[in-house]
Amino acid sequence: MVVPFSDKTQHEAKAFERTKQSFCLPDGIIYLDGNSLGPLPKGVSERVATAVEEEWGGKLIRAWNEADWIDLPTRVGNRIGAMIGAEPNAVVVADSTSINLQKALAAALQLRPERKVLLSDSGNFPTDLYMAQGLIAALGDGHQLKVVSPDEVEDALDDSVAALMLTEVDYRTGRLHSMKALTAAAHAVGALTIWDLAHSAGALPVDLAGCKADFAVGCGYKYLNGGPGAPAFIYGRPDLVDRIKPLQSGWMGHKAPFAFELDYIPAEGADRMRVGTPPILSLTALDAALDVWDGIEIDTVRAASISLADLLIDEIERRCAGFGLRLASPREGDRRGSQVSFHFDEGYAAIQALQAQGVIGDFRAPDLMRFGITPLYIGEAEIIAAAAGLETVLKDRLWDQPNLKTRAKVT
Amino acid sequence: MVVPFSDKTQHEAKAFERTKQSFCLPDGIIYLDGNSLGPLPKGVSERVATAVEEEWGGKLIRAWNEADWIDLPTRVGNRIGAMIGAEPNAVVVADSTSINLQKALAAALQLRPERKVLLSDSGNFPTDLYMAQGLIAALGDGHQLKVVSPDEVEDALDDSVAALMLTEVDYRTGRLHSMKALTAAAHAVGALTIWDLAHSAGALPVDLAGCKADFAVGCGYKYLNGGPGAPAFIYGRPDLVDRIKPLQSGWMGHKAPFAFELDYIPAEGADRMRVGTPPILSLTALDAALDVWDGIEIDTVRAASISLADLLIDEIERRCAGFGLRLASPREGDRRGSQVSFHFDEGYAAIQALQAQGVIGDFRAPDLMRFGITPLYIGEAEIIAAAAGLETVLKDRLWDQPNLKTRAKVT
Repeated sequence: MVVPFSDKTQHEAKAFERTKQSFCLPDGIIYLDGNSLGPLPKGVSERVATAVEEEWGGKLIRAWNEADWIDLPTRVGNRIGAMIGAEPNAVVVADSTSINLQKALAAALQLRPERKVLLSDSGNFPTDLYMAQGLIAALGDGHQLKVVSPDEVEDALDDSVAALMLTEVDYRTGRLHSMKALTAAAHAVGALTIWDLAHSAGALPVDLAGCKADFAVGCGYKYLNGGPGAPAFIYGRPDLVDRIKPLQSGWMGHKAPFAFELDYIPAEGADRMRVGTPPILSLTALDAALDVWDGIEIDTVRAASISLADLLIDEIERRCAGFGLRLASPREGDRRGSQVSFHFDEGYAAIQALQAQGVIGDFRAPDLMRFGITPLYIGEAEIIAAAAGLETVLKDRLWDQPNLKTRAKVT
Repeated sequence: MVVPFSDKTQHEAKAFERTKQSFCLPDGIIYLDGNSLGPLPKGVSERVATAVEEEWGGKLIRAWNEADWIDLPTRVGNRIGAMIGAEPNAVVVADSTSINLQKALAAALQLRPERKVLLSDSGNFPTDLYMAQGLIAALGDGHQLKVVSPDEVEDALDDSVAALMLTEVDYRTGRLHSMKALTAAAHAVGALTIWDLAHSAGALPVDLAGCKADFAVGCGYKYLNGGPGAPAFIYGRPDLVDRIKPLQSGWMGHKAPFAFELDYIPAEGADRMRVGTPPILSLTALDAALDVWDGIEIDTVRAASISLADLLIDEIERRCAGFGLRLASPREGDRRGSQVSFHFDEGYAAIQALQAQGVIGDFRAPDLMRFGITPLYIGEAEIIAAAAGLETVLKDRLWDQPNLKTRAKVT
């Protein structure tokens, strides 16, 4: 299928020409799943090979100093911090998002010892709720996790709440919370905030310092394109972090890791949120992946994302009318993250059939077809081709015809 | 320096000919620090490149199934499990050793709710003590960490002890605890055991099931050569693990991670000790590194290790007599792990000067020169050359002559 380029496409194509060239994208694939696993940036393979062969292979143990592996969690943390409005040296890269979430939770409960409620919502990513459940059960001192619906969060804030723990963008619908308003509302009742930025970092502007957010965590492998299971990040408000006695008090968070003292003394600042030895190869991939962002303004990405998502909604609703699809995402761009989801009873089968056509989105139970919008490498042409592909899948009920596999093309 | 090959060297050279060829070892370097960071096995670079380019780059999100990333923590766990006497599916690879240690600690305290003492020793690696301190402080319910000297451990076991937490091999002196005897002694008073195998896995025979050990953790980047910050492993005794409600209750340890339920329900078996998304690139490096062990018996490695360590002690004591060195490791091979350490007042400077000669050992405060013995790629020739290098360093006080840099050679 040949998609004619509009003026707008030309404009976007120019803005994101370099970034699109920066990714390895398989031929014939339209990738609308960068919110699950970002694609491979071109520079990563060489940088990882250098880390393996020259640093590990050539320098051996000396690479901890000579290749400065030891500070990589802070260096990469600062690069991510600059994308999410964090103060310098307030973000480190370490562990998984789940573990980091529990670090922030334990810290928040410690800072609000008299309060027993952790407030979250049913739009949170489940692992965040699970990690809260595990911590509360272990503490066994009357804490409770209160889970309300996303629109009830503000009303549920009261002076029993130690911490409000939310994912800014709902992983299913893309519904966007207001970090600024909810942080202010939490602070007004004396609660702390923990923001999960898994679907925010690299997707939309985040202003942690401006919002006075207390803690934040997020993922390296979605919009930051750091590779499968890339290490996660954690932010702690600088004036709070030195008051935390970390639950996860590992040697890399010690004031003097190589003094090998028997007692834990936390490092100053965000370094105390480090725990064990960082996975250098995965961390190097993330570091290299961030090069794609050099010279890119997140506001430009956000504007393109909203425009492309609007286009996808329009195209799907126009082409696929009558098939029972129902928009799950907010229709207003500024209330959405960087994805579009539709309810569809046969969504699972349809997403599989669409994938066989070369259009990769994903499915989230019970009935959501989800499409990630990533302007760094997705433009109008891909959006239109994806909608056309979905139209074909629905019209021909391709999931009933497993042998009929054609591929959407962007030329 | 040309070292003539003895009959014994010939024999060892044959046994480990293949394994030595399996590593990328820089020219002119004698590497006695594989107990800190194992060197690069030759197959790793290609396997990591395949994971980056073909799996991540080519398959994108589909690689979680098509390249079976999702089960990699279990597959690699089973490979390591086979080296440490674990039952099938009792080991998973996940997180760092520090985090895994805290998983085991939290589980042990849960299984012995009426007991308040965690017993450890001053020979434990500090991060293990730190993680215990962090957990105890967070629990805040009267637990205490009791740290005794290594030879007092058995006497300190009584019915107040919930768990005995030890590193089998002392990271400084190489002193080896008896896992079998101490596990039995702990069980005799109703305590559980947590073994840190950081300096054991790949260094000496370990028989977790035979010793009835309850939990174990260990490191992927030392004797397993998995690369800098390689993910760690955790073992849970199969009949205990299903009774644990994990503190670190992340989605990858959920019974149905992709059902995205709001409540945590643990997976059966060792999978419940998984937490977040695993760092696939680092994990792939570890997986590839384990290929070196195919066809190698750990008993053969152990015998060679003891013999080489004995030789190093003999050579250093003979060549360096009169310089004030004092053996810190047990003299009896079966009471040592796979390293040799010497006290020396100017140890730090001497290790630096030795490194300038191409012999890489390391230094541990306050005065220990430490040499890792790794028969997979170190033989008699290297041991003799290293001792000769140390002799030169000491005789010429090379650390006073920073411009005089020669290199030990093995021909």
